[in-house]
Amino acid sequence: MKKKENSNVSGLKIIPLGGLEQIGMNITAFQYEDSIIVVDCGLSFPADDMLGIDLVIPDVTYLKDNLDKVKGFVITHGHEDHIGALPYVLKDINVPVYATRLTMGIIENKLREHDLMQTTKRKVVKFGQSINLGHFRVEFIKTNHSIVDAAALAIYSPAGVVVHTGDFKVDYTPVFGDAIDLQRFAELGKKGVLALMCDSTNAERPGFTPSERTVGPTFDTLFEEHKNTRIFVATFASNVDRVQQIINTAYKFGRKVCVEGRSMVSIIETARNLECINIPDNTLIEVDQLKNYPDEQQVIITTGSQGESMAALSRMASGMHRKITIGAGDTVIFSSNPIPGNEKSVTKVINDLLIKGADVIFQDAHVSGHACQEEIKLIYTLIRPRYAIPVHGEYKHLKAQAKIAQSLGIGKENIFILSSGEVLELSSDSAKVTGKVPVGAILVDGLGVGDVGNVVLRDRQHLAEDGIMIVVMSLDRYNSQLVAGPDIVTRGFVYVKESDELIEEARHTVDDALQRCLDRGITDWGKLKNTTKDALSDYVWKKTKRRPMILPIIMEV
Amino acid sequence: MKKKENSNVSGLKIIPLGGLEQIGMNITAFQYEDSIIVVDCGLSFPADDMLGIDLVIPDVTYLKDNLDKVKGFVITHGHEDHIGALPYVLKDINVPVYATRLTMGIIENKLREHDLMQTTKRKVVKFGQSINLGHFRVEFIKTNHSIVDAAALAIYSPAGVVVHTGDFKVDYTPVFGDAIDLQRFAELGKKGVLALMCDSTNAERPGFTPSERTVGPTFDTLFEEHKNTRIFVATFASNVDRVQQIINTAYKFGRKVCVEGRSMVSIIETARNLECINIPDNTLIEVDQLKNYPDEQQVIITTGSQGESMAALSRMASGMHRKITIGAGDTVIFSSNPIPGNEKSVTKVINDLLIKGADVIFQDAHVSGHACQEEIKLIYTLIRPRYAIPVHGEYKHLKAQAKIAQSLGIGKENIFILSSGEVLELSSDSAKVTGKVPVGAILVDGLGVGDVGNVVLRDRQHLAEDGIMIVVMSLDRYNSQLVAGPDIVTRGFVYVKESDELIEEARHTVDDALQRCLDRGITDWGKLKNTTKDALSDYVWKKTKRRPMILPIIMEV
Repeated sequence: MKKKENSNVSGLKIIPLGGLEQIGMNITAFQYEDSIIVVDCGLSFPADDMLGIDLVIPDVTYLKDNLDKVKGFVITHGHEDHIGALPYVLKDINVPVYATRLTMGIIENKLREHDLMQTTKRKVVKFGQSINLGHFRVEFIKTNHSIVDAAALAIYSPAGVVVHTGDFKVDYTPVFGDAIDLQRFAELGKKGVLALMCDSTNAERPGFTPSERTVGPTFDTLFEEHKNTRIFVATFASNVDRVQQIINTAYKFGRKVCVEGRSMVSIIETARNLECINIPDNTLIEVDQLKNYPDEQQVIITTGSQGESMAALSRMASGMHRKITIGAGDTVIFSSNPIPGNEKSVTKVINDLLIKGADVIFQDAHVSGHACQEEIKLIYTLIRPRYAIPVHGEYKHLKAQAKIAQSLGIGKENIFILSSGEVLELSSDSAKVTGKVPVGAILVDGLGVGDVGNVVLRDRQHLAEDGIMIVVMSLDRYNSQLVAGPDIVTRGFVYVKESDELIEEARHTVDDALQRCLDRGITDWGKLKNTTKDALSDYVWKKTKRRPMILPIIMEV
Repeated sequence: MKKKENSNVSGLKIIPLGGLEQIGMNITAFQYEDSIIVVDCGLSFPADDMLGIDLVIPDVTYLKDNLDKVKGFVITHGHEDHIGALPYVLKDINVPVYATRLTMGIIENKLREHDLMQTTKRKVVKFGQSINLGHFRVEFIKTNHSIVDAAALAIYSPAGVVVHTGDFKVDYTPVFGDAIDLQRFAELGKKGVLALMCDSTNAERPGFTPSERTVGPTFDTLFEEHKNTRIFVATFASNVDRVQQIINTAYKFGRKVCVEGRSMVSIIETARNLECINIPDNTLIEVDQLKNYPDEQQVIITTGSQGESMAALSRMASGMHRKITIGAGDTVIFSSNPIPGNEKSVTKVINDLLIKGADVIFQDAHVSGHACQEEIKLIYTLIRPRYAIPVHGEYKHLKAQAKIAQSLGIGKENIFILSSGEVLELSSDSAKVTGKVPVGAILVDGLGVGDVGNVVLRDRQHLAEDGIMIVVMSLDRYNSQLVAGPDIVTRGFVYVKESDELIEEARHTVDDALQRCLDRGITDWGKLKNTTKDALSDYVWKKTKRRPMILPIIMEV
């Protein structure tokens, strides 16, 4: 399905630097001669085996190596997997950032945190507006998604037009703003589109994603059914439309609304300043004002719908929140679905809430923000691209979209499931993977960016599995005799207080092995360390069937 | 809903020693005067934060403390969460084990591995048969489940009859053996049942679980659609009926069947010896014989449907299996659903298989082994118990069953959602939680049983998060001066080769702090260690925002 062999094509290069093989870390470079533009600059959250890592950002070596060519970042919408790496990457690639209004508002919150406002050129773009970036012109097209102001991009190059949908769904009745600009997609398709890069997240799901607006009546029903209790609604911090609908229902039922969770408070404030959300006067209250109203006049909208242990909902469920505790009689509505991988932590919060006596509602109060199969077909049918490049998904999602494209008559040879780093070169009549650029995941741990890699992760995994045994000894520098030790200190291996015998026998085993070396005149530190490791690991494996990390330390005195 | 206050009840005690608040580790003691019987003795798999742990078994201190009273283990069926802890617990509580035929066959495989066959009394019980155990009589009643020979128990005591469903579904057309013995349930109900302990696993799901037999036609259809490819089917090792149906379809389509995965091979062999599975002659072949048949005449039934990285399917997908590699043109059918928590690892295997070019089918080839809401209602309606004690589930499942029981007219005060360790005392007209016995999770890590506890786990979590910094130094025992060190060795903290400066500066910081102590005549080891910890952790936090474990080691020479 890829690597169509063609002779010596040249033209537009599409270079995904992340975002394929995973949902997250979306960033794609488009290059024509000496012009490069970059669409999105997202982070991803650490995989289960990335112990201790806070977040993951893309390796942008290719951009650094071509710094003079990079004209700007063009951002489709304000979700972390599309903007989260910007503050890190901008430090090296200081070029202008282009985005729609709310997207820019959210980006600016980040830039402020990283003290980058002064040094970052920014331009807010309107839907329908185009920007010129070197050989490129980029037009922002209105779409719908689970965040306001999401855009698709029409990227005009001398080799042809590429349409990048961003993350989207087709919502004919959106809560805020207009429906997706299907007419413009049709117009572009009519004129001829070289390639379509389309969101694959829901490509495995048949049918249509329902309108965001369908969630509103669900809230009305749920509020009607729980007139006499305090109501909590947990949802995604950035889903401004969802918060709007909760507020609409709350207002209808005469309830005051309190927003809890730092990220949600920040985004709602930004949305309010930009008039992307409409909050009636005297509806929003601070957490400290809750005590002035009876339970049945309160709604608390909160983060933590994914079971995140540090988010407001988990803290309110476990009694660790400073101001609010959820208990018997409260109603908690999950307006979300668990993101794959979060099922267990979400279930944990639900169990905690039920044990506390709360009523938990976990159904019908959520719709997806991504297009299902019929919407993807609609976009393909309007755009009629020559080439299809499924984006935004794991392999199974990309593959599912490839199947859809094929079902619409696009030939296998014109569908490209790319890997991150592959360079797809397009001209008006050919497409070919012509090379590979360096890509990868840079791990962020605390303040460290990239100082934790595979070696450190492997050590953390080893330590996590069976702990560590440290063997210390002091050698006399003149006659190479042990003057102290070997002593054994362990952490994460066994409960030490009940394992005296095991540790003492281990010490003897190491001592004997070392003495045999020294008696034979072997004083090379490397050899002594290896002897220690071998003797101890054999002994420990035999006794416990465990393999702790063994770390011999020799001091010379 | 619990702890009904009643005066001084006495009689039958029901003491769950595990299995509530979680799915797994099922074990319940029933006590009447000096007789104790134990229903099931299962293990659970480690939670995400139990780093390095292999499996978890229940704390049976209560049984050890009452060893003379314990009459036997009565086992409902052969799944790990009901039998897995037996080999560990039998070492302390050596009493007879009662189970149906296949259940006992699987238990005996375990006993052989642990060299316990000679010392364990065992009795195979038939459906309809009763065994006398002190004051108790226990009758085994036929049910249906995702493993053959599953039983419910009617437990007769002088205080009344308790029915324990075990894990069950209602299958009117089972693949092997009879349908669940609903007539017996009705008969017991007619005579009067004191309490029902019913499987809650699917209590949140409306409707009925379909018959296992419905999966057969799905295999027929899938095999018909993939006549020209090799077919792999991944399912649970212990689902003998599922394997039977795959073999039936394979035979129909003239394919040879190879079973891969140690646990599945073992259980199928046991089932075959006991004639619980019917394999036509010349159908089963060894893995080495596969090469004698063309792809379209092969079916490989395999473990690994949960994405377990060491199971046959993952190894065949990643090219790490010694004999079989799955590649382009192969068809892989998942005859399973991901158990909550396994979604990501299952998705990983699916992506790996798709990337290799295999066709992956993930739908319609599985049914659950647990009763849904309508089946639970049926059992309650036949049994008509005075008291309802939902079992086998997390709190949300138990709560869902409690709601069902209430909807059937059982009063709130007669429904008991117990916690593990609670003692529920029942007489013919009263029920009350009267006490609490010690319970808990014993962690098994390699050969160690219980030598890893919270202290060790906390250390492993700390090590996993940010690694370790070890500070070694040698002190002169006479004048308390540093004669070597402080030296710093780290693992899992930063990539050392690129952090010379950080480590060297950290060493200076510690050295300065120590010298200040020694200069002031402070030579107490505890104080020197604390000084080291404080100085280093402050420095490291400031520089990296990380909190590695800091371990000062002083040697005296």
